[in-house]
Amino acid sequence: MRILVVNVNTTESVTAAIEASARAVAAPGTEIVGLTPTFGAESVEGNVESYLAAVGVMDRVLAYREPFDAVIQAGYGEHGREGLQELLEVPVVDITEAAAATAMYLGHRYSVVTTLDRTVPLIADRLLLAGLDRRCASVRASGLAVLELEEDPDRAVAAVVEQAEAAVRDDHAEVICLGCGGMAGLDDAVREATGVPVVDGVAAAVTVTESLVRLGLRTSKVRTYASPRRKHITGWPLGGSRS
Amino acid sequence: MRILVVNVNTTESVTAAIEASARAVAAPGTEIVGLTPTFGAESVEGNVESYLAAVGVMDRVLAYREPFDAVIQAGYGEHGREGLQELLEVPVVDITEAAAATAMYLGHRYSVVTTLDRTVPLIADRLLLAGLDRRCASVRASGLAVLELEEDPDRAVAAVVEQAEAAVRDDHAEVICLGCGGMAGLDDAVREATGVPVVDGVAAAVTVTESLVRLGLRTSKVRTYASPRRKHITGWPLGGSRS
Amino acid sequence: MRILVVNVNTTESVTAAIEASARAVAAPGTEIVGLTPTFGAESVEGNVESYLAAVGVMDRVLAYREPFDAVIQAGYGEHGREGLQELLEVPVVDITEAAAATAMYLGHRYSVVTTLDRTVPLIADRLLLAGLDRRCASVRASGLAVLELEEDPDRAVAAVVEQAEAAVRDDHAEVICLGCGGMAGLDDAVREATGVPVVDGVAAAVTVTESLVRLGLRTSKVRTYASPRRKHITGWPLGGSRS
Amino acid sequence: MRILVVNVNTTESVTAAIEASARAVAAPGTEIVGLTPTFGAESVEGNVESYLAAVGVMDRVLAYREPFDAVIQAGYGEHGREGLQELLEVPVVDITEAAAATAMYLGHRYSVVTTLDRTVPLIADRLLLAGLDRRCASVRASGLAVLELEEDPDRAVAAVVEQAEAAVRDDHAEVICLGCGGMAGLDDAVREATGVPVVDGVAAAVTVTESLVRLGLRTSKVRTYASPRRKHITGWPLGGSRS
Amino acid sequence: MRILVVNVNTTESVTAAIEASARAVAAPGTEIVGLTPTFGAESVEGNVESYLAAVGVMDRVLAYREPFDAVIQAGYGEHGREGLQELLEVPVVDITEAAAATAMYLGHRYSVVTTLDRTVPLIADRLLLAGLDRRCASVRASGLAVLELEEDPDRAVAAVVEQAEAAVRDDHAEVICLGCGGMAGLDDAVREATGVPVVDGVAAAVTVTESLVRLGLRTSKVRTYASPRRKHITGWPLGGSRS
Amino acid sequence: MRILVVNVNTTESVTAAIEASARAVAAPGTEIVGLTPTFGAESVEGNVESYLAAVGVMDRVLAYREPFDAVIQAGYGEHGREGLQELLEVPVVDITEAAAATAMYLGHRYSVVTTLDRTVPLIADRLLLAGLDRRCASVRASGLAVLELEEDPDRAVAAVVEQAEAAVRDDHAEVICLGCGGMAGLDDAVREATGVPVVDGVAAAVTVTESLVRLGLRTSKVRTYASPRRKHITGWPLGGSRS
Repeated sequence: MRILVVNVNTTESVTAAIEASARAVAAPGTEIVGLTPTFGAESVEGNVESYLAAVGVMDRVLAYREPFDAVIQAGYGEHGREGLQELLEVPVVDITEAAAATAMYLGHRYSVVTTLDRTVPLIADRLLLAGLDRRCASVRASGLAVLELEEDPDRAVAAVVEQAEAAVRDDHAEVICLGCGGMAGLDDAVREATGVPVVDGVAAAVTVTESLVRLGLRTSKVRTYASPRRKHITGWPLGGSRS
Repeated sequence: MRILVVNVNTTESVTAAIEASARAVAAPGTEIVGLTPTFGAESVEGNVESYLAAVGVMDRVLAYREPFDAVIQAGYGEHGREGLQELLEVPVVDITEAAAATAMYLGHRYSVVTTLDRTVPLIADRLLLAGLDRRCASVRASGLAVLELEEDPDRAVAAVVEQAEAAVRDDHAEVICLGCGGMAGLDDAVREATGVPVVDGVAAAVTVTESLVRLGLRTSKVRTYASPRRKHITGWPLGGSRS
Repeated sequence: MRILVVNVNTTESVTAAIEASARAVAAPGTEIVGLTPTFGAESVEGNVESYLAAVGVMDRVLAYREPFDAVIQAGYGEHGREGLQELLEVPVVDITEAAAATAMYLGHRYSVVTTLDRTVPLIADRLLLAGLDRRCASVRASGLAVLELEEDPDRAVAAVVEQAEAAVRDDHAEVICLGCGGMAGLDDAVREATGVPVVDGVAAAVTVTESLVRLGLRTSKVRTYASPRRKHITGWPLGGSRS
Repeated sequence: MRILVVNVNTTESVTAAIEASARAVAAPGTEIVGLTPTFGAESVEGNVESYLAAVGVMDRVLAYREPFDAVIQAGYGEHGREGLQELLEVPVVDITEAAAATAMYLGHRYSVVTTLDRTVPLIADRLLLAGLDRRCASVRASGLAVLELEEDPDRAVAAVVEQAEAAVRDDHAEVICLGCGGMAGLDDAVREATGVPVVDGVAAAVTVTESLVRLGLRTSKVRTYASPRRKHITGWPLGGSRS
Repeated sequence: MRILVVNVNTTESVTAAIEASARAVAAPGTEIVGLTPTFGAESVEGNVESYLAAVGVMDRVLAYREPFDAVIQAGYGEHGREGLQELLEVPVVDITEAAAATAMYLGHRYSVVTTLDRTVPLIADRLLLAGLDRRCASVRASGLAVLELEEDPDRAVAAVVEQAEAAVRDDHAEVICLGCGGMAGLDDAVREATGVPVVDGVAAAVTVTESLVRLGLRTSKVRTYASPRRKHITGWPLGGSRS
Repeated sequence: MRILVVNVNTTESVTAAIEASARAVAAPGTEIVGLTPTFGAESVEGNVESYLAAVGVMDRVLAYREPFDAVIQAGYGEHGREGLQELLEVPVVDITEAAAATAMYLGHRYSVVTTLDRTVPLIADRLLLAGLDRRCASVRASGLAVLELEEDPDRAVAAVVEQAEAAVRDDHAEVICLGCGGMAGLDDAVREATGVPVVDGVAAAVTVTESLVRLGLRTSKVRTYASPRRKHITGWPLGGSRS
């Protein structure tokens, strides 16, 4: 099966890292295709950038010309998954939700450790909408920006571990979700420091997506995610108008 | 004061109707400026179109070159208000929320009567996120599409009145919110049929917005709606790249 | 239009201060009439006094012989708004709710800073009933009694600022509501100290009320706030029996 | 022990009926003293009357000169219990809450069948505040006014049974609470018709109250129900000023 | 009346202590019969032991050959009450729920102080299921195991008092529930230290149970707690197979 | 990898059917081992049987002597998953939760169609505890007992389809979960009738479990699911005492 893993930002190196993470856990026979939006922010850390990502991701997926079996939206707390579900019949999985749902199999409560404080409410809101919030003990910010994670891995480990430890100690989290696509490599360090299971969203999403495809499950089309009605849309696809 | 009232779809006649509604209730001295996104759907009835509207509205507001005091996003259940709040310091008001908050002053529970069934979950989700859901008795669909409201006003009245009556009778609503910018003219008919107060979102949003401006209140910039960080954004503003 | 602003306590100087606050933000053409109950506590800081205020406010409004267009109940966390809504057809606005609903347009979460710790549960309960609680980050007590606010303004500023800063820092509030009619003058100091928008309930309520009147909206009479049934009431109005 | 059972309306025959209900279940050694407020409505069916009852009940209890061990407020959905808790150290029990808490020992969900539709939101709000709402399947109105229950017992039985049956069948209630002090005699008929346990609030409150007294438990005085602060209260007690 | 008070663990001395607690508050004419399961853990401090207790308690009650009027399950946070309700028509009361419901009559919020940290989620889950969670300020662990409470009473007092004080000071609890059957003797010490009412679950459950019996109330049999269907059960009762 | 799939009842043919369902979706290399408890009910349709199943399943798993990588508890709405999580370090997945979490990837709201009405509250309670309830539109009963599903497949299809259609039409479900291990074969019929995705719990659980194992995730041992403390347990394992 072929799974599109779409980055929410326009930084190719992040796409490459996400793609590598996804491949590392993919089953034999699963082809992972990383995609980068053709417009949008180099990193997504707020609502403007997130809404732009929602459209950029849809635009990028629509421009993809080969057949595929599912889509993973590889942004933590970003908008857009619902739009993809309308556009497609194949399963669409958001890593924020895949991580949370996975964590809930492993402990009574989970916490998310993310990047900047300003992204905390976005993640909290997405979990609320997804109905996955009640067992969320906390969403904590490491204080590092998305692109800083790549630039200074040691500092990233230290900052994320510090918040993960606080989540376990003070918020009674029993599982930690790494709240940024760019944190994939940190799971071992966090698990060792805290002694609790650590869920990486991209990895979780790959196995969830493979499962949905294997079970022959597709997005429900009866109401919320019915295909868009036929109508005039000015300037869309946006990317298409540029190519 | 000058208030930008931004339509979420690209149909100029809808913008004109919204603008007229807004002017009808604006205080002396309030200038209403209707804006239409330069890209997006002719009507917004689902997630794809809503996300596109979120970006289209931000794009259109950024392209506006004159000073202004506040922005109203005139879409019922659409995404995007949070993005505008990040971009601007002046107040930003979504008509979905203004209508709900206004209705809550008038009765114990309110219902929303909207267009198509597929938009019901979008409105419900926005009310949930806004924390205005607990006193919402129901969101009901009239079955009419956005543009059908204009085309056949009599049928629109009948369909909306039918659902409003059901909301009062079966869901114990005590106030009705008209759940679409294009329903502005229907309030008298619905009030007469049901005997309960009817809130039009555009009208409510105009007075809410004027109030915020008069009180000197502005969007909080400490966390969720802090200005976007300085970073590279490819192809943005989108509208700008086309002009 | 004429708006009655009813104090919940019997201290005339507090009524005068509230009236002045209200006038300072009222639109041209709005007449503010401050009213003081003829019985009840000199300050309201608990349930006994709050219930007494509920009745005292209704009693006072019923004794008012001129026409009026709306009523503001100027107590933070007090009972009684529902009773006024039954008695009247014109809009009735409680400052607790007007402040919260206004704050919700400005930030993701808001906190209330009030007077004594014992009034915190009353405010929390009123927000719960009003369905405005989910985005409330905290209700915090400054430790100052209502009448101490007037007596020692410097201490009042210091105490309220301290709690407002804690709400922003520890509870992630992005907006502060001043949780007492008597705190009206403190908004500048709190805003300067915290950098977040500060909402004064009386000011917010004036603009909300003017908006409802301008929009021709009245209290729904179909169920919860239907006019009281005709029946024998012993000793009512209470104030009337004394005059 | 002596328990004051305070009616919320001023109709002596209702007080007598409540008193008889209470005595019928009281333990040997429990003295039941029925009290009627000296002011207020002949029946309480809305917010105005309920707030008046809150004050009337406090006033009447304060005027009682003998020692007592606990107070039952015998109104379904009325305000006021919190005020009594401030004024007294002995336990105060509201029949709305005693009925609900008792019903929760007997089935998975309970419904309340009350008098007029307009009192439904009052009861729902009191259950919400009491934190006893989640297992409430519904609050249903029989359509009979409080005083009609006495006047036409056969019609009362039929109307209450009809709603109780609907609650069991449609709302999945497993227990019925009789939602009015004046419904005490109806429990057998409702139980026979529905086959589910029926809880009368007055009876439940008597045994709850006796239990609290026997266990030596008293109202907590640390915060919400601390004694009122010493201050000037004009015209209070209200009843006292008339006697 | 005869009430069976069933211990959830197999330690006879704990049964004896619970029985003594129950007798100390039972009304004249109430016979308390303490029962110990014939299989299960010597103390219950987790899910395995709790599920085993659920079955052990049912098994023990079924093996009791004399008539009885009600059953109290004397474990804090353990499973099983629903099963007993299916098996019996007489009332079944869990001390976790009796304590919480009793505490809610006495203050705005209550906290539970229990034994080990690992039992906190069990208690929280039981309160959630019972619909008694919203007014629960916190569940706190003293750090002492069930059997340590007996072994070192002084240390038990100190540890429980410390957490109770923290609950009042930091979590705004106004009432403390002693969250373990084995804490019965500690109520005076905790009340003296904190100044708030202290509820012992066994004592509360005895008076609740007596009340239900006196009122003639029995478990509802229409749905959730209908008698088990007639079917083949292998190896049940379990205890019976061993005797 | 080897996954134990444990039936909750003692009917071997049901175990065989579940095992076949699981094998049908298992990945190459996954060995499915079906286990049947040695004691308990032939079908589980209530709390007594469910608690017995909880212990029977733990008992059976403990008696299994070969290594294994994960456990699936194949009962819909039954107790026990938490106990297995304490006993084991490998992942434990309950089909009720796997189905719900899977359905949430496919539509805005899901419904469960189960067997008898009496099992509805058990399922609802398990979803509440799991934090997967908010997007559950309804739990509906087909009226067929567990063993009737096998006996009369045509009637089973008709009864389940009828409720599934009602869930989509009246409750706005967009996905249907088959709420009984014995309904596995019905998914095609229900999907065809309703046009929405249908999730079978056993199938969903197999892929979830394989995913957890592949990702190297194990149950968190820091608090709720820490291994049981070393202590004396009388008569345990129960099954062991019989072999």
